[in-house]
Amino acid sequence: MLSNLSAQGGEVGRAPLPTIWWLGPIAAVIALFFAWRFYRQVMSKSEGTERMTEIAQAIREGAQAYLSRQYRVVAIVFAILFLIFLILSLLNLQNPIVPVAFLTGGFFSALCGYIGMKTATNASARTAHAAITSLNGGLQVALRAGAVMGLVVVGFALLDITAWFLILYYLAPAVITSSSSAFGFLVTGNPLVQITATMLSFGMGASTFALFARVGGGIFTKAADVGADLVGKVEAGIPEDDPRNPATVADNVGDNVGDVAGMGADLYESYAGSILATSALGVAAVAAGSATLFAGSSPSLAEMMDLQLRYLAAPIAVAAIGVLLSIVGVYLVRADENASQAQLISALGRGLYGSSIGIAILSLPILFILDLSNMWAIWISILAGLFVGVIIGKSTEYYTSHAYNPTQSIAEQASTSSATSLIEGLAVGMESTGAPVVAIVIGIAVSFYVMGGVTNVAMGLYGVGIAAVGMLSTLGFTLATDAYGPIADNAGGNAEMAGLGPEVRQRTDQLDAVGNTTAAIGKGFAIGSAALTSLALLAAYLEEIRLGLTLHGAAEELPIIEGRALAEWTMYDFMDHFQVNMLNPAVLIGVFLGSATAFYFSSMTMRAVGRAAGDMVEEVRRQFRETPGILEGTVRPDYARCVEISTVGAQREMIKPSVLAILMPVLVGVLFGVAGVLGLLTGGLTAGFALAVMMANSGGAWDNAKKYIEDGRYGGKGSPAHKAAVIGDTVGDPFKDTSGPSLNILIKLMSMVSIVFAALIVAINNGQGLVNLIFGG
Amino acid sequence: MLSNLSAQGGEVGRAPLPTIWWLGPIAAVIALFFAWRFYRQVMSKSEGTERMTEIAQAIREGAQAYLSRQYRVVAIVFAILFLIFLILSLLNLQNPIVPVAFLTGGFFSALCGYIGMKTATNASARTAHAAITSLNGGLQVALRAGAVMGLVVVGFALLDITAWFLILYYLAPAVITSSSSAFGFLVTGNPLVQITATMLSFGMGASTFALFARVGGGIFTKAADVGADLVGKVEAGIPEDDPRNPATVADNVGDNVGDVAGMGADLYESYAGSILATSALGVAAVAAGSATLFAGSSPSLAEMMDLQLRYLAAPIAVAAIGVLLSIVGVYLVRADENASQAQLISALGRGLYGSSIGIAILSLPILFILDLSNMWAIWISILAGLFVGVIIGKSTEYYTSHAYNPTQSIAEQASTSSATSLIEGLAVGMESTGAPVVAIVIGIAVSFYVMGGVTNVAMGLYGVGIAAVGMLSTLGFTLATDAYGPIADNAGGNAEMAGLGPEVRQRTDQLDAVGNTTAAIGKGFAIGSAALTSLALLAAYLEEIRLGLTLHGAAEELPIIEGRALAEWTMYDFMDHFQVNMLNPAVLIGVFLGSATAFYFSSMTMRAVGRAAGDMVEEVRRQFRETPGILEGTVRPDYARCVEISTVGAQREMIKPSVLAILMPVLVGVLFGVAGVLGLLTGGLTAGFALAVMMANSGGAWDNAKKYIEDGRYGGKGSPAHKAAVIGDTVGDPFKDTSGPSLNILIKLMSMVSIVFAALIVAINNGQGLVNLIFGG
Repeated sequence: MLSNLSAQGGEVGRAPLPTIWWLGPIAAVIALFFAWRFYRQVMSKSEGTERMTEIAQAIREGAQAYLSRQYRVVAIVFAILFLIFLILSLLNLQNPIVPVAFLTGGFFSALCGYIGMKTATNASARTAHAAITSLNGGLQVALRAGAVMGLVVVGFALLDITAWFLILYYLAPAVITSSSSAFGFLVTGNPLVQITATMLSFGMGASTFALFARVGGGIFTKAADVGADLVGKVEAGIPEDDPRNPATVADNVGDNVGDVAGMGADLYESYAGSILATSALGVAAVAAGSATLFAGSSPSLAEMMDLQLRYLAAPIAVAAIGVLLSIVGVYLVRADENASQAQLISALGRGLYGSSIGIAILSLPILFILDLSNMWAIWISILAGLFVGVIIGKSTEYYTSHAYNPTQSIAEQASTSSATSLIEGLAVGMESTGAPVVAIVIGIAVSFYVMGGVTNVAMGLYGVGIAAVGMLSTLGFTLATDAYGPIADNAGGNAEMAGLGPEVRQRTDQLDAVGNTTAAIGKGFAIGSAALTSLALLAAYLEEIRLGLTLHGAAEELPIIEGRALAEWTMYDFMDHFQVNMLNPAVLIGVFLGSATAFYFSSMTMRAVGRAAGDMVEEVRRQFRETPGILEGTVRPDYARCVEISTVGAQREMIKPSVLAILMPVLVGVLFGVAGVLGLLTGGLTAGFALAVMMANSGGAWDNAKKYIEDGRYGGKGSPAHKAAVIGDTVGDPFKDTSGPSLNILIKLMSMVSIVFAALIVAINNGQGLVNLIFGG
Repeated sequence: MLSNLSAQGGEVGRAPLPTIWWLGPIAAVIALFFAWRFYRQVMSKSEGTERMTEIAQAIREGAQAYLSRQYRVVAIVFAILFLIFLILSLLNLQNPIVPVAFLTGGFFSALCGYIGMKTATNASARTAHAAITSLNGGLQVALRAGAVMGLVVVGFALLDITAWFLILYYLAPAVITSSSSAFGFLVTGNPLVQITATMLSFGMGASTFALFARVGGGIFTKAADVGADLVGKVEAGIPEDDPRNPATVADNVGDNVGDVAGMGADLYESYAGSILATSALGVAAVAAGSATLFAGSSPSLAEMMDLQLRYLAAPIAVAAIGVLLSIVGVYLVRADENASQAQLISALGRGLYGSSIGIAILSLPILFILDLSNMWAIWISILAGLFVGVIIGKSTEYYTSHAYNPTQSIAEQASTSSATSLIEGLAVGMESTGAPVVAIVIGIAVSFYVMGGVTNVAMGLYGVGIAAVGMLSTLGFTLATDAYGPIADNAGGNAEMAGLGPEVRQRTDQLDAVGNTTAAIGKGFAIGSAALTSLALLAAYLEEIRLGLTLHGAAEELPIIEGRALAEWTMYDFMDHFQVNMLNPAVLIGVFLGSATAFYFSSMTMRAVGRAAGDMVEEVRRQFRETPGILEGTVRPDYARCVEISTVGAQREMIKPSVLAILMPVLVGVLFGVAGVLGLLTGGLTAGFALAVMMANSGGAWDNAKKYIEDGRYGGKGSPAHKAAVIGDTVGDPFKDTSGPSLNILIKLMSMVSIVFAALIVAINNGQGLVNLIFGG
């Protein structure tokens, strides 16, 4: 069938795909196969006692109820956006493929979240049960369950990308025969620039879904957590995860819908976005730099497309290798029956660093086979990306682990008062923005300049893009260690509620603590790749603008810049034409608004947690008051009511911030044009990045400062220092698990919205915006 | 004498200054005269009882000791910077006038701080004494003392600006006769562009001093405040300002050195910077837009200079009118013997809004007399500036006054727990960035586009600059109401410590509370004008680059852009040449680093407060422990030791953040060139603005939420809600009084450093940076 298509494609002048490109779909299938295999392995274990199954069932039902409700709300949003895109494409303001592709991106993102959540909720009781006999048993169940999530994310992303490419490159041209239709570009001589630019906008579906999953899940989990802690721990004085606390089940459900489903959707989008953006930049870079790349001779169409396809294949092949290494990584993790904490960390670290080193080594033959003239520079870019990820991860660990000075100083300040501990925690978070930004800056500079960005901007940005791809290539494994954390956490909850022996709880706590460290590194990769990908998306946005201007028929009105018409404009030609420079107030206005959007968005998500937690506090108090038997342990509390409250709260609260994220780029674009949009994205990216790092690290540090005190320092549990630290931890909850991670998506979604609405924006005053239209005369 | 100079100047081809320009020096003299007069009026009052004088004397001595110590440290820094500038100017990398002018700026800024502080420390006992008899009496003394500060700031700033201009325009050319000397530009045909660009760098002295004053003062005051509160109020349970608390005097000294001296130095810099930047842009705008402004005919040198001088005179004349209106404003404020709170606010509001309306009206005849063709557009820009100030002020009031919902909701959350109250406060602060940014954006857009910025960028930016000038023109009065707050606060402290009757304390509290509201509006003007001025400084920076490139002899190597050589390059030519656009990684790297610098700088100042406060806590505890008689009221505590601790702490802690602020622009410039610097400034401005607004408003809201509870809500003083609110208030202290206001200066100082080191940066790879040099080949 495919060779058939290939032949047909050949008839309309299609250069064949490099053989190595096919690693992409193959790796996708392998990833999905192993995900299925790991899922079967997890499900083959016993859930343990009747009580354990019962608790797990309650959490499963709660999570299921939440997700089905969330998916219903999101479905309405998707229906509305689909309609808007449809109308825009009928008005010739949108590529007609986008509405359909938008749905597939959202669908796969949602599917990843669903499968991840389903596996996680099935795995926690099984992890607790396995931990009864051994630590390694628990580790294996939890990690394999996490790996299901990791592998479906990378598998579906690669599948979606490669399938769409095959359709647009081979199948569609074979069906469409006229170049005058809306799909005309597919049958032109070299459609690669347009195909890759169009495919970029497919990310919008994934990021829209990810926003709702992250924001909704983040609100759910923290409303339950804060509510459970404030009434249960502080007021009633019962321990964490105590079955008498009505919000306990909701708290555990929250871990699954926020940390698992939300994170999976988030990283699906980063992963797909980095590959799509890099492919698009590779194709554009070859077009822009053909003089150098073909050593002065004018390439034929076939030669040109052949080279473009090889640059396009590089990120896909690197990602494919990463998938295989991730699977190997899962098998590498093993712990002795009585492994210490340090051994556990080194076991997971072996997988993490092993797969990263694997990418560093194996990407070299890939690049060699692709026979790219600047293969060494590309390789250095990939290394730069890995370096950024490791530095951000290590910095996160330094600032949030109680093995180091910053978190210890927060604990020390807690012994003075909660106020000084809070001041110190905020200061630690702000300080912790320094190292990641410097790492990002070095990563950008190295990958851009080593790729010769000074002479070919698109090629330089291709370097930045492939750095992001390199960093994310082992996502299958890093995501497994990320999802493993909440599973271990839930296993601990299950052990506590089911009344298993203290040694089981101790084992699950040990697994959980390791999860915190790996999660820190995983978060580093997530935010770092978001920053690099966003930069690549800025450039890719311009290809979208070119497409939009062409579609809009503005090509003839636009100036010829140094002999280049719109179709040949370089990236800097766009900058000159739209005056996307620092003295254009439209740009500065955009940067200002982008920065404020990050702050305003964070405020919305923080308050949403506050409001939803307030409802939860009242409900838990009501149950304790109206049913005294609950605290005596004779009556089972109404868990479902608490799940319901978090669910309703999350649905209600996730709408406004999401609308802000979608509206801002459109509004700024309509008023201030392309220049304003690029300013907005830059401001949102830079301020949002710093704010996200600050919130994540302040929150993490407060959490671990509390644990540090609980280990017996400054008076231990119940001391004034501990009470002070608990306040810090509670303030940190929405910081690190709602607002911080949501900013990640805000940044990416604003880029995606800009890309998707590019054609609309250029239709207004040729992309110069309404304000310019009014005052330009 | 002056006419003599004028005649000599005429000999080397000097167009005469517009008559109305002379309003500047005249207003400066009038301002200084009234400052002296108000000072005499304050000093003629009695300080009251012996105990009152004694307390006032202790505070005076503490403030004096702090300032003389601070000035010594700053003198060393100035000596080092002076040497660097001297060496740079000997290497032809710096204008030889800059080292001297740098010192005058610093000197006047320091003098303003000193006079303001001296008046304030003399005024508080007198205010308390006057308040024994009547409310209006106290109001008059405090406001007049504040007005001394307000008027010396505007007086010295106008004096410095106009005197230097006269020297450079008339006196220096008469002395220098050769155009080949380093000062050669002063005797060329039209030296106006170079003179105004050079004068801009004079602001560096003022901003360097302001940084130390703000950061050092901010650390001093909050270390004392937090230390006094934590041990005195929380641990020992004695009231605020109780004479038994050893840190009480230090706390009152802090109000004077931080809120009075620090703020005066800060706003001296904003005020001078906005006038200088606008003048420079006016001159540049006429040069760039001569075709339109002279209706197609080619102007003679005299015609050109005449028009440039009129644009240059406009901001000075507007500022001069503002000085006169400020003096009228002080006389307008009067309260009945038994005025209510609302009447007091409206009395001060009459002065505030009255002087703003006065500027709106009286700037029109000024512009008419100057006969500027776009006078209506300039007038609209001035109105836009006033609008921005009022909106930011009103928004600050809305978010921080307990008459409104946000602060009330923080108080309400305090009744649940301190954690939720802190979350709410942080969310309120983040939300509160929205309205000011939208106001700034509207202000920029209106003033830029109405001035025809689309066709003449420099003219558009002149509009933004004059908006800032309009906003700051009534600074003499707004600063008076700002400085009035700490004076009234100190008067309350004096009354408490001297054991005056409760009705006196009530009156001073009433005066203090009104001060909080006016201070909110004043802060709005300060931060808003900093944002607008920074934008104007970005543009002015380019004139500095042009000068530097010429000085460096690079003019011939640089490309002719559309027939324009370096001397005629437009602002956008610079943007094109240095590729200061959003796709140049050097720019993005700059924006990233600028944003992170704002966060990192805030972290440093927050921790500095934490550390210094920690020392204070220990000292107060030590005194209570070792001398039990203190708490019994039989032994007087060692006040001086606490002042010493705050002083030493502030000196120690202010160095590192200051070095960061000065080094970053130089480092980024050396590595990434002009493009990187403009990115850095933009990132610092936008993220710093949002962060500053957030911190100021979170802090203010927590403070007032506490007061709201103290008024009897949620259980009043001593209730759990009150304890929770006190924690918020303490966290907010460094937010609103150290880190937030310091960011204001960080933003401006980074611009100034960039301007002063412009010639050095262009000497490296012609301003393209080292990284480009290495990879550019």
